[in-house]
Amino acid sequence: MSGNTFGKLLKLTTFGESHGEALGGILDGCPAGITLDFDFIRSEMQRRKPGQSSIVTQRKEEDEVQFLSGIFEGKTTGTPIGFIIPNTNQKSDDYSHIKDTYRPSHADYVYEQKYGIRDYRGGGRSSARETATRVVGGAIAKQIIPNIKINAFVSSVGDIFIDKPYQDLDFSKIESNAVRCPDTATAKKMEQHIKEIKKQGDTVGGTITCVIQNVPIGLGEPVFDKLHAELGKAMLSINAVKGFEFGSGFCGAKMKGSEHNDSFNSDGTTKSNLSGGIQGGISNGMDIYFRVAFKPVATLLQKQEVLTNQGDIIAQQGKGRHDPCVVPRAVPIVEAMTALVMADYFLLDKLYL
Amino acid sequence: MSGNTFGKLLKLTTFGESHGEALGGILDGCPAGITLDFDFIRSEMQRRKPGQSSIVTQRKEEDEVQFLSGIFEGKTTGTPIGFIIPNTNQKSDDYSHIKDTYRPSHADYVYEQKYGIRDYRGGGRSSARETATRVVGGAIAKQIIPNIKINAFVSSVGDIFIDKPYQDLDFSKIESNAVRCPDTATAKKMEQHIKEIKKQGDTVGGTITCVIQNVPIGLGEPVFDKLHAELGKAMLSINAVKGFEFGSGFCGAKMKGSEHNDSFNSDGTTKSNLSGGIQGGISNGMDIYFRVAFKPVATLLQKQEVLTNQGDIIAQQGKGRHDPCVVPRAVPIVEAMTALVMADYFLLDKLYL
Amino acid sequence: MSGNTFGKLLKLTTFGESHGEALGGILDGCPAGITLDFDFIRSEMQRRKPGQSSIVTQRKEEDEVQFLSGIFEGKTTGTPIGFIIPNTNQKSDDYSHIKDTYRPSHADYVYEQKYGIRDYRGGGRSSARETATRVVGGAIAKQIIPNIKINAFVSSVGDIFIDKPYQDLDFSKIESNAVRCPDTATAKKMEQHIKEIKKQGDTVGGTITCVIQNVPIGLGEPVFDKLHAELGKAMLSINAVKGFEFGSGFCGAKMKGSEHNDSFNSDGTTKSNLSGGIQGGISNGMDIYFRVAFKPVATLLQKQEVLTNQGDIIAQQGKGRHDPCVVPRAVPIVEAMTALVMADYFLLDKLYL
Amino acid sequence: MSGNTFGKLLKLTTFGESHGEALGGILDGCPAGITLDFDFIRSEMQRRKPGQSSIVTQRKEEDEVQFLSGIFEGKTTGTPIGFIIPNTNQKSDDYSHIKDTYRPSHADYVYEQKYGIRDYRGGGRSSARETATRVVGGAIAKQIIPNIKINAFVSSVGDIFIDKPYQDLDFSKIESNAVRCPDTATAKKMEQHIKEIKKQGDTVGGTITCVIQNVPIGLGEPVFDKLHAELGKAMLSINAVKGFEFGSGFCGAKMKGSEHNDSFNSDGTTKSNLSGGIQGGISNGMDIYFRVAFKPVATLLQKQEVLTNQGDIIAQQGKGRHDPCVVPRAVPIVEAMTALVMADYFLLDKLYL
Repeated sequence: MSGNTFGKLLKLTTFGESHGEALGGILDGCPAGITLDFDFIRSEMQRRKPGQSSIVTQRKEEDEVQFLSGIFEGKTTGTPIGFIIPNTNQKSDDYSHIKDTYRPSHADYVYEQKYGIRDYRGGGRSSARETATRVVGGAIAKQIIPNIKINAFVSSVGDIFIDKPYQDLDFSKIESNAVRCPDTATAKKMEQHIKEIKKQGDTVGGTITCVIQNVPIGLGEPVFDKLHAELGKAMLSINAVKGFEFGSGFCGAKMKGSEHNDSFNSDGTTKSNLSGGIQGGISNGMDIYFRVAFKPVATLLQKQEVLTNQGDIIAQQGKGRHDPCVVPRAVPIVEAMTALVMADYFLLDKLYL
Repeated sequence: MSGNTFGKLLKLTTFGESHGEALGGILDGCPAGITLDFDFIRSEMQRRKPGQSSIVTQRKEEDEVQFLSGIFEGKTTGTPIGFIIPNTNQKSDDYSHIKDTYRPSHADYVYEQKYGIRDYRGGGRSSARETATRVVGGAIAKQIIPNIKINAFVSSVGDIFIDKPYQDLDFSKIESNAVRCPDTATAKKMEQHIKEIKKQGDTVGGTITCVIQNVPIGLGEPVFDKLHAELGKAMLSINAVKGFEFGSGFCGAKMKGSEHNDSFNSDGTTKSNLSGGIQGGISNGMDIYFRVAFKPVATLLQKQEVLTNQGDIIAQQGKGRHDPCVVPRAVPIVEAMTALVMADYFLLDKLYL
Repeated sequence: MSGNTFGKLLKLTTFGESHGEALGGILDGCPAGITLDFDFIRSEMQRRKPGQSSIVTQRKEEDEVQFLSGIFEGKTTGTPIGFIIPNTNQKSDDYSHIKDTYRPSHADYVYEQKYGIRDYRGGGRSSARETATRVVGGAIAKQIIPNIKINAFVSSVGDIFIDKPYQDLDFSKIESNAVRCPDTATAKKMEQHIKEIKKQGDTVGGTITCVIQNVPIGLGEPVFDKLHAELGKAMLSINAVKGFEFGSGFCGAKMKGSEHNDSFNSDGTTKSNLSGGIQGGISNGMDIYFRVAFKPVATLLQKQEVLTNQGDIIAQQGKGRHDPCVVPRAVPIVEAMTALVMADYFLLDKLYL
Repeated sequence: MSGNTFGKLLKLTTFGESHGEALGGILDGCPAGITLDFDFIRSEMQRRKPGQSSIVTQRKEEDEVQFLSGIFEGKTTGTPIGFIIPNTNQKSDDYSHIKDTYRPSHADYVYEQKYGIRDYRGGGRSSARETATRVVGGAIAKQIIPNIKINAFVSSVGDIFIDKPYQDLDFSKIESNAVRCPDTATAKKMEQHIKEIKKQGDTVGGTITCVIQNVPIGLGEPVFDKLHAELGKAMLSINAVKGFEFGSGFCGAKMKGSEHNDSFNSDGTTKSNLSGGIQGGISNGMDIYFRVAFKPVATLLQKQEVLTNQGDIIAQQGKGRHDPCVVPRAVPIVEAMTALVMADYFLLDKLYL
């Protein structure tokens, strides 16, 4: 009820504040007998980790995950997988300046209004540091559904967009640059833009596109738990996300039915795929693809007006090491949440075996 | 698990196929002692009902809701509210032509693949007729939170958009025209456009904007059940929806942080509201607003290729009375799902009393 | 949350007051493709129905169930099964005498305290009439798991007990007498006792034993959702139930480990079965058996003190037709709840396929 | 779904095997602003800890709980409370002898059948060591509902029973002896009996009675989530429990209605309390009391037949330090689960504010 659990059969429950002892979680409902690839889990954590390149925050977080249960001799046992990620490098004093102030477009004010109390250090529970636990869950989820391929990438930064359909992109190039954009020329422009924004002490938003391939037909639980509705919720639950569209998305709203309908081939596949791989909330076997909008990071390394808990408006400058653009590091988070949804719906569909 | 329940404390569970005996539902968790306005519920049903104007389907559905429990002497008793909407005007023979065929961009094919069986009459469970039960639930939900004002309206049809911010619109005019667009001049253009599309035997998509006003601070359950994540899921669960954005939405992804941050006033309100009334998943007391994209209706009154269950591709023309544009009738459905989310989160927030 | 839904994957949500328009429910999560035996469902309803013999209430309830969805051409479709049971024979005036009074050991007083309002007619939602919907759900659940055999019977009425282990009983005789006791000699004594009690205008309690045979190994979800914990909750949720024990039960608490342990045979079965077919919350393939205690019906056809809503204590006599002993009619309810649990856990176990 | 979460609004999710790195859990839904008494939590852990007296296992478990989140400056913040209990003293080699064998009346066999794999060290997830996490959750739950008084005590060991109603007992004496029986004379007999049983290398069962006082009227969610149904499930989920009864319990099944009904006083209290403080699933303000049956511990320090995974029956003797009687140490576990239920239902009842 309190919003810290995601999933139906495969449930990830998480805890942790950015400057507490540790973050962590429990993944329950993971099938037994899966030989886990711990190197893969570590590499997924590395992708999310700050400090990987000059265009992301240089803050250091070790993000070493410790598994405490549910695994025996390298295999899942069907019992809950508990894990923690100790917070090793958090300095509380960095944040004393925000103890009594509410930063604009942060959650400081609403947490204090809702709960009457907040852990102000580094955003507490509302910090994007929380997403580290999602990446752990997602890295295991990917191993539950090894045949389903999930690739997310940065499709825009500010006004700079990839101007090709995803079918023309080489996903193997996603990790070849700091922006995680598979189109090399666009990636360079994005990188340049982020560096300029950073120099200004400013931040910029962007979008991530995610493509899911090799999806079995039949995943999805109508009417309220349509596959895309759950994917949408998963994405919208990620910090800084402002929008979600799948298939034709907002463009589809401008189209005519005669343009939009996807004609069948005789094998049940479709000639076009404006539907985005989902009909009536159920996967149809075609690629699922969707796009996620991220707002610019709210913490600026320039002066801004903040509200104090005395009701005064004062000028304050963000401190510390923050991302000028969140989307490169959000790519593995989008994939993780996608994997959690797909694995969960894969397991749910076993009901109909 | 099977996707026919929506909500956490206030739970709507629904059933019903478009051509079965009846649709219906159970609203559980409604607080006791609310004197229900049945005329209001009926009027909400009327708004969704087909046949209201020349631009929507002329199909007749009586949509008379019968309440069977949970209400005593006009008041809610705290026990579950069971209700049914008999299907009085459905003629099964209208649909015999689709018994052995799968229509493009409909759910016929995936239902048969997932379940091995489908009620082919009129789309069965995947028919938008299902949303009638949501309107009943929403009409009660609105009465749980009478102070929160929910107004949805058509903001675009095809390429025709309202070119004003919602603050400049007069919501009292929404019901004054058949399109449910509060900007009279734009409404006329939309209506004209829909009539032309209809003449062509075609359909067209559109968007609905929804504004929620007078929201208490503190509604929302981070981290996975952020208020906008639940609103997004609610919208994406409605038939034909392809996208959801709130506040700055996809535009926000192009902006810089210095442009996007909403500065505080000394009373905790904000000068701008690009955040869309939600920070970190929790309402901040400002207006919540979001936009929902609907694809064009898939049933066309022109020939299209369909797939038969023998693997043949044949030409077939849609029969019956269908909407050339779904958005006018979707307005009350968007409001209903919004009301269900807001009432649910309102009740959840009582945990912190 | 509000307690009107039972089950995890196979979910029964019910509604209805004893004197409202109708009772009903939604069974969600039923696998598709099951050819339902409607005669069987009707016969299960008949077993619960009042007026079947001289030792149960002569009240007439037609208990005709109408299925409204989720079934097409006689088969389940995987969509939710909605159903109603109209209340055809309820006379509200029968209950006007309890409008302002709270009967001892009924729920009148607590419903009014909790909800601030109650439907006083015939006990409203707290009436055992509610269990009719459980029998519908259970009758379908039994058809999901046709191989698992569920037999409940009356094992005691007042001080009269069956003095044999269940293995010595012939379950085919359960329905051969009005008490539903498979031991004919004991059944006669019980029947005689109930008739005497009835003459006195009094009521008497009893116990029901339930035996589940042919159970697959592996059903149960430790640690909190152990199979017997869910069975226990299911039983304790039935009106008038005061206790639940399985396997050795309360007797087991008096035993030594060397007496109580069930030694293995080499095929994994056990020589004794004091465990009652469940180890660590998981079925082990042996018979599951448990016993349920029912208190005597609280409505007496003799004068009792009742509390008025003015705080006065007055004498009042129960009216109408009530059961002198509830256990004979509770047998199908115990079976229904058992079937719901077993089918649900059967489906849950598919996760490990 | 997989059974490692307990509760509705106040949710405890746990993980951990007896010989893994650590046990732990996440308590979600705890209201914000509660100043936690950590000494109290530690003392509750001490009560469950092995090695406290000569009649319980001398095994050493430090059971030091570390809180990792959800608490700031000593107060709950409304975010999830993550905690771990490191396993510091587990020696895996102690258990190598059971790697290939299934002990009678243990869960070894069914875990392997269900999951295809098991952590055989010390019972793995099925070990009662898991209950340590419940005590942490319960110790916090007690602080959510400080006015509700929960007292559990040992009411029988083998054939030795307390022969007084609970009203005649002095709960302050529960902790004054090793058996946790408030009746000193009976406690001595029990202690003596357990020592004899221990000498024989045997074990013995017993019962625990729990009394809940000062309960607000109105807690409970009919029809399926009746307060006693949830208490029953909570108790039956504890290792070794075989039965649950509340109020008159199984004795009530022998009584007549005229004996069993609890007459009202004019203030809504009742003269007798055979109902056990709950009517129709809702608390009525009277004391709630119930009794829980525990089987004898299955591990014996004498030779028993075990099954090998090759299908052989061999003789094997239990090793290590085990409890000859589990009930003294189960008292704090019964209280913890009771507190979790009562706090959860207390929070749920806020819906009706």
